[in-house]
Amino acid sequence: MKRTGRVGPTGDGGAKRAHGASRAPKIIKERSRKIGLPPGTLVHIGEKSDREIRIRVLDYGRDRCEEKEIKGLQECFYFADTQVMSWIDVEGLHEVELIQQLGDCQGFNPLMLEDIVNTDQRPKLEDFDDYLYIVIKMLHELDNGGIAVEQVSLVVGANFVISFQEGLEGDAFGQVRERIRGGKGKIRTMGADFLAYALIDAVVDGYFGVLERVGERIEVLEEEVVAAPSPETVRRIHRLKREIIVLRKALWPLREVIGALERRESPLISEPVTIYLRDVYDHTIQAIDAVEAYRDLLAGLLDVYLSSLSNRMNEIMKFLTIIGTIFLPLTFIAGVYGMNFRNMPELNWQWGYFASLLLMVAVSLVMLLYFKRKKWL
Amino acid sequence: MKRTGRVGPTGDGGAKRAHGASRAPKIIKERSRKIGLPPGTLVHIGEKSDREIRIRVLDYGRDRCEEKEIKGLQECFYFADTQVMSWIDVEGLHEVELIQQLGDCQGFNPLMLEDIVNTDQRPKLEDFDDYLYIVIKMLHELDNGGIAVEQVSLVVGANFVISFQEGLEGDAFGQVRERIRGGKGKIRTMGADFLAYALIDAVVDGYFGVLERVGERIEVLEEEVVAAPSPETVRRIHRLKREIIVLRKALWPLREVIGALERRESPLISEPVTIYLRDVYDHTIQAIDAVEAYRDLLAGLLDVYLSSLSNRMNEIMKFLTIIGTIFLPLTFIAGVYGMNFRNMPELNWQWGYFASLLLMVAVSLVMLLYFKRKKWL
Amino acid sequence: MKRTGRVGPTGDGGAKRAHGASRAPKIIKERSRKIGLPPGTLVHIGEKSDREIRIRVLDYGRDRCEEKEIKGLQECFYFADTQVMSWIDVEGLHEVELIQQLGDCQGFNPLMLEDIVNTDQRPKLEDFDDYLYIVIKMLHELDNGGIAVEQVSLVVGANFVISFQEGLEGDAFGQVRERIRGGKGKIRTMGADFLAYALIDAVVDGYFGVLERVGERIEVLEEEVVAAPSPETVRRIHRLKREIIVLRKALWPLREVIGALERRESPLISEPVTIYLRDVYDHTIQAIDAVEAYRDLLAGLLDVYLSSLSNRMNEIMKFLTIIGTIFLPLTFIAGVYGMNFRNMPELNWQWGYFASLLLMVAVSLVMLLYFKRKKWL
Amino acid sequence: MKRTGRVGPTGDGGAKRAHGASRAPKIIKERSRKIGLPPGTLVHIGEKSDREIRIRVLDYGRDRCEEKEIKGLQECFYFADTQVMSWIDVEGLHEVELIQQLGDCQGFNPLMLEDIVNTDQRPKLEDFDDYLYIVIKMLHELDNGGIAVEQVSLVVGANFVISFQEGLEGDAFGQVRERIRGGKGKIRTMGADFLAYALIDAVVDGYFGVLERVGERIEVLEEEVVAAPSPETVRRIHRLKREIIVLRKALWPLREVIGALERRESPLISEPVTIYLRDVYDHTIQAIDAVEAYRDLLAGLLDVYLSSLSNRMNEIMKFLTIIGTIFLPLTFIAGVYGMNFRNMPELNWQWGYFASLLLMVAVSLVMLLYFKRKKWL
Amino acid sequence: MKRTGRVGPTGDGGAKRAHGASRAPKIIKERSRKIGLPPGTLVHIGEKSDREIRIRVLDYGRDRCEEKEIKGLQECFYFADTQVMSWIDVEGLHEVELIQQLGDCQGFNPLMLEDIVNTDQRPKLEDFDDYLYIVIKMLHELDNGGIAVEQVSLVVGANFVISFQEGLEGDAFGQVRERIRGGKGKIRTMGADFLAYALIDAVVDGYFGVLERVGERIEVLEEEVVAAPSPETVRRIHRLKREIIVLRKALWPLREVIGALERRESPLISEPVTIYLRDVYDHTIQAIDAVEAYRDLLAGLLDVYLSSLSNRMNEIMKFLTIIGTIFLPLTFIAGVYGMNFRNMPELNWQWGYFASLLLMVAVSLVMLLYFKRKKWL
Repeated sequence: MKRTGRVGPTGDGGAKRAHGASRAPKIIKERSRKIGLPPGTLVHIGEKSDREIRIRVLDYGRDRCEEKEIKGLQECFYFADTQVMSWIDVEGLHEVELIQQLGDCQGFNPLMLEDIVNTDQRPKLEDFDDYLYIVIKMLHELDNGGIAVEQVSLVVGANFVISFQEGLEGDAFGQVRERIRGGKGKIRTMGADFLAYALIDAVVDGYFGVLERVGERIEVLEEEVVAAPSPETVRRIHRLKREIIVLRKALWPLREVIGALERRESPLISEPVTIYLRDVYDHTIQAIDAVEAYRDLLAGLLDVYLSSLSNRMNEIMKFLTIIGTIFLPLTFIAGVYGMNFRNMPELNWQWGYFASLLLMVAVSLVMLLYFKRKKWL
Repeated sequence: MKRTGRVGPTGDGGAKRAHGASRAPKIIKERSRKIGLPPGTLVHIGEKSDREIRIRVLDYGRDRCEEKEIKGLQECFYFADTQVMSWIDVEGLHEVELIQQLGDCQGFNPLMLEDIVNTDQRPKLEDFDDYLYIVIKMLHELDNGGIAVEQVSLVVGANFVISFQEGLEGDAFGQVRERIRGGKGKIRTMGADFLAYALIDAVVDGYFGVLERVGERIEVLEEEVVAAPSPETVRRIHRLKREIIVLRKALWPLREVIGALERRESPLISEPVTIYLRDVYDHTIQAIDAVEAYRDLLAGLLDVYLSSLSNRMNEIMKFLTIIGTIFLPLTFIAGVYGMNFRNMPELNWQWGYFASLLLMVAVSLVMLLYFKRKKWL
Repeated sequence: MKRTGRVGPTGDGGAKRAHGASRAPKIIKERSRKIGLPPGTLVHIGEKSDREIRIRVLDYGRDRCEEKEIKGLQECFYFADTQVMSWIDVEGLHEVELIQQLGDCQGFNPLMLEDIVNTDQRPKLEDFDDYLYIVIKMLHELDNGGIAVEQVSLVVGANFVISFQEGLEGDAFGQVRERIRGGKGKIRTMGADFLAYALIDAVVDGYFGVLERVGERIEVLEEEVVAAPSPETVRRIHRLKREIIVLRKALWPLREVIGALERRESPLISEPVTIYLRDVYDHTIQAIDAVEAYRDLLAGLLDVYLSSLSNRMNEIMKFLTIIGTIFLPLTFIAGVYGMNFRNMPELNWQWGYFASLLLMVAVSLVMLLYFKRKKWL
Repeated sequence: MKRTGRVGPTGDGGAKRAHGASRAPKIIKERSRKIGLPPGTLVHIGEKSDREIRIRVLDYGRDRCEEKEIKGLQECFYFADTQVMSWIDVEGLHEVELIQQLGDCQGFNPLMLEDIVNTDQRPKLEDFDDYLYIVIKMLHELDNGGIAVEQVSLVVGANFVISFQEGLEGDAFGQVRERIRGGKGKIRTMGADFLAYALIDAVVDGYFGVLERVGERIEVLEEEVVAAPSPETVRRIHRLKREIIVLRKALWPLREVIGALERRESPLISEPVTIYLRDVYDHTIQAIDAVEAYRDLLAGLLDVYLSSLSNRMNEIMKFLTIIGTIFLPLTFIAGVYGMNFRNMPELNWQWGYFASLLLMVAVSLVMLLYFKRKKWL
Repeated sequence: MKRTGRVGPTGDGGAKRAHGASRAPKIIKERSRKIGLPPGTLVHIGEKSDREIRIRVLDYGRDRCEEKEIKGLQECFYFADTQVMSWIDVEGLHEVELIQQLGDCQGFNPLMLEDIVNTDQRPKLEDFDDYLYIVIKMLHELDNGGIAVEQVSLVVGANFVISFQEGLEGDAFGQVRERIRGGKGKIRTMGADFLAYALIDAVVDGYFGVLERVGERIEVLEEEVVAAPSPETVRRIHRLKREIIVLRKALWPLREVIGALERRESPLISEPVTIYLRDVYDHTIQAIDAVEAYRDLLAGLLDVYLSSLSNRMNEIMKFLTIIGTIFLPLTFIAGVYGMNFRNMPELNWQWGYFASLLLMVAVSLVMLLYFKRKKWL
């Protein structure tokens, strides 16, 4: 396993991605590149990675577990032995020819291949009789707090699962692989449908980490919006809204996908797996509930922000008004006794000056009392 | 019953909880701790309590009622005598091993055990043929006005009910226990389904207390928002919104759960109990109606707050404008007669000073009249 | 009929109610009083009246009509003669024992009796095979413009109807009683289902009066909000919103109730009555339409209010700005010539003073022209 | 045709209506007048017209077309000849006795007659086996830009159609009548269902004129709201919202009515007519789409208005701030040199005055530069 | 192909359109022109083009491909040879007679012809047994950033497709024509249903280009709204909202159309095509998702705009307040020592003037410190 060879490109790729993520996530990817092409033409739509495509094959059964990693596609896979489960994991979709070759080998539908390399798919389930095609979305948190979406395609047959990852964020299925290797749990004794479940479960589990982080960011914003609202706060709220939209686009169709699997609309799903699928289904519903709750909270936050601003404005205006109301009359009094009329009796009084000062103090005291009573002070 | 032994931990636990509640309730709990574990692994997710787990067994029938409290789990329970109803109430979920042991004894599904100790479940009903698994949410008001949510799991068999409480807020089922002891009502003559109904009913009844309090807090806010709006008001509104979201998350799925029970989708629910279930169902709908109504009211409150602020701003600005409009012209007049031109005839008039004062009075009277007519005064 | 005996308590009760209504209507009533009681326990929830309970019995058929009023419940009612229709109207629900006694006599379901005295029910229809239980909400306008909600329960059997009113606002069914007495219309020739229809129809008809009044209040507010917006306006809008919420809670479930009756889900509803029920159903839909329309209008009103406030603020600020912009430069000029420099040539000019005055006039004219062009004047 | 006799009352009626329309359209009409009346009692609810009721009979078939206009109702209509289609058009509903007489003649259901004269109906379709009762709403634009709603009832039998118009705005069915007279199109060769279709189509076609006008008014408002927002603008937006609500109330139920007709739920609708009904159905959907789009636009308009106001406020405040920031320091400087201290060296400088003027110019230039850099100028 | 002959009119037409697009797109077109006409009357509703109508005929089969372009309609088309697929593409709908003639030739339903020339249709699918009538909307971006909507009608028979374009924006089907000519992909070997799919697919593909552009414009606005909000920004947001409304009106019904095709409700759709239709269906859903996401984002943008404005207002007011608070006290002090009282001891002090200046500096420093602490500076 060429881990060293992988570090290099990851470094670059990570930099590129971090850059891409500093912008808000896109609602649709540049699909216009496909306009006018006949159906079944494979065009890779998505982030270009410069890592090599990695294909890992894992054959396992009750008592066996064989792993190998291949570079290119020298020959087709044959899933002849029905006692052996095969999991082929393809990481990286940017070499369209390889996917085409793999698809032709297995006799896969060209429309499905087209969808595998076009990473701007909605989560969906398609039944091609001999195999199921499942598209789901994997979420990753980025270092800058953003969310990256990666498309995962699963082709589930009677005794094989082929999974396609974009390969942007390293291997998400490591823990499933570990469980197969270790022979822990039921996974070695169950079929391809259980493996598919395990992979979907790994992806859905990943959602909760992202959702927890979103929840924390909302709580931080809730504090900030009252304590120290700034234009940056609005920008962050709007950014989170965009991410919530992306989450909803990943989650809502996923519910339908897992629901359809659970209802066993295809004979490829065996009865003992449905209870596990119901479990993932429940998790999906919970994730959706959380997303909707976050959405409600965010919608309220901007209103809170606006009212915070209005409050501050009121504070400022109150201050200006108090200052103005105190000094305008005082300045006026000073102005009066600065007039140059010949006959101004007060000016010649012995204590005129001090009387005028007293008058000014009295006026400001009255004003302050008035503000006190109005609760402005 | 070691009441004394319970006081200590309660003190601590209460302090901890009060602390936790001063923050807004979480939308999702720290589920990320479970990522990568195979299905059926028991991980306690929820608030850690340092109280001991308490298991109370109550065997009853038409003419009998036996109670005992056990500490650990020395042996399995056998529900052999179909004439005897057994209710086992487990308070506290943090000792995962005990739950595991209990589940293994009774041959319960591991996925169900996993859900029992993961208190971040949605209310749901699962049918395992021999028993039903019901998750509902109990609400408690906290002293600081917040709402704590506690998960209650019920496993309902033919002649037994096992209830699991988180044990954060003391025993919620005391009154049901009292009714069984006293033999009041029908409860001793009915089966496990009726006991399950009675427990659900106790939980749903508890909602109304919480809802009444929420309603009162909204009424207080409705007064405050017009009479004395402050940033604290907004914070309270937002806080209530969050709690309404938590209430909705507990209530909406509950409706489906009780609806499914009432439709008798499982043979474990007997016909005479459905009329009681319909009654709880009605209560749930009413609670939902109330929550939705509160939501509408809260949404309106922030608008009222904003308009209150705008009103105050108008008041402040009006005041400043009046002060400015009166004193700026007066100061100007005083300024004119403070000029040092050699040839200013008015300065030498005998009554010039008094004439100027008169002019100032006249100007301010005109201004005041103008404001009077404009309804600003 | 002891009308005199009724006047006294009504006076008090009216005062009490008027007081209660000056507060906004509650979303849920104090149901927490019922927590922990076994099902079937009768607890009166609602406004306590100190009037005596009044029971009026009306037996009628094609050619007969007998009325009597009874004080207590000396014996049970028997509805043996299927040719005779019996209508028993109970006004006042606060004597729980009487309702209990009545229910025991007729063998009514205890859960139903519980609901009759708990006036915090949702409108609903329950089918107890031998009789139907219908809960609807009667609306009354209060003198202070508020809306009072009164619960009406109907128990409809093969040849009897028992109606339960809270008895807060006098008899709402007077006109139906009059029609039976007079033998007008079809009412004497039809069965219990038609009587039930007539009673429901009387209640629904009452809605339109309330709705018209709400419509008028909204129209008044629409004027006020633009012409003379004040904090009181917001309070009124919010108050109306609360009432709309109460109306919705009464109306939406009513639709389902009447819809179920019309679909003749119970054999107690005969075919000829369905056309009449469809008529009430249409009325309910219309009332719902109106309530939704009012809701939309009210939602818009607060926005109009806010924009009205902003408008006024603009006016005020414009005025202050104009005053400031005119007098600040003038005062400055006066200040300049009030300086005490030894060498200020203008001061010694013969017409310096008048020139400075002219300058001031010129400056203010230029300012006024500028504002004119900016359309601020 | 007594056109002359009609001019007089129209004059008055028009005046009255114009007056009525200057107020916003009502959500519900004064239905409270009907409270307490037994079902089937005819009460005219709607605008009172003082025009005479006009009944026009049109008998036609493939080769014939006979028209006559009758004043009162001397005898019943018999629709014996199944080869002849009869269309009886009643204009004016305020003479309740005539409608009653007509209904009794034809043996119509009294509830239907009640609905015909109560013009506050929702659009609906009722199937009385021998005839269908259809209520739809006709829209008219008023001269002052408002929208008047007129109820049209159609009774459709096997070989007759009786149409009831309120008769407020002249004959809306003129063009259908013309087509029958001229024998153009298929209308003479088709049955009563096609005539009903043609009448409904005429009404729905009328919607588009009204909708176009509404669209134009919204476009005008969109300009006004940015260019010259005034309180009148808000009033117009709110007025349009009210009209949109009225349009929705007419259109949404209409869709159901035409949908039910198209599904041929009654045998009175023949198969060849369904394609035409589908056409009207499409038009209704389009009208609904347009109304919903207008609603969205209007909802946005008030926000645009508010932001326009805020913008203007910003402009005003900026101006005041600039003026204040320039003249306050200048006046201060002038004030300093207006002080009367004995020992102020500057005052005795030869060029002190000019130096102070220079200082003032410098200060204002610095301020202006500052504003320039802040982009306030 | 008379490309030269086409340039001239395009110039004019383009100018006209560019002019039309500078206004917002209309919600409904001037349909009122059709009021009163019998069904089946052809009236062209839409933009008048002065280009000639262009009819292109393409006959193809597995091994053949014949193209010709005809000017007028000299004779009818016969689609006798079931081995040959015919695609007749009509560009330009303003010559109603030609469409009428074509329709009469082929025996098309007059209602369908009416809809073809009335370009204000909703996307819809109508089944006339022998042929399907499909209406969809093509979107074009205009140079000024606006969106033009063009109606495309498809008549799909067993072995022919007739497509009608408005011909406003040049030929949208060029790439499909190219694929047929080149014989690439499956298109030559499939039937009329596949051609219809290909044409719909071309239209739907076009949506993504438009949507990407809309997304980019929203991103630009998101920057602008925080960085440099101006009234123009609001206008742009509102304009985009209008375009989103137009997009929704085109997309939502399209989903139903393609969904109905995919469910093969007509025998004209063969089984192998459904998988392709499902693909377009997915694309439509994605486009709808994107439109809804954009709608959410836009709704949020105006709020961000308002909060940006409020922020700026706060900045401005803070500045004014600081200036006022510093200079008002200073001017007052200067005023005091400008008073002309005979007995003012300070005036005679040796360092009185400098002491007063020091006092002023001290006052302003205190003020500045105060603002510093209040975080206003």
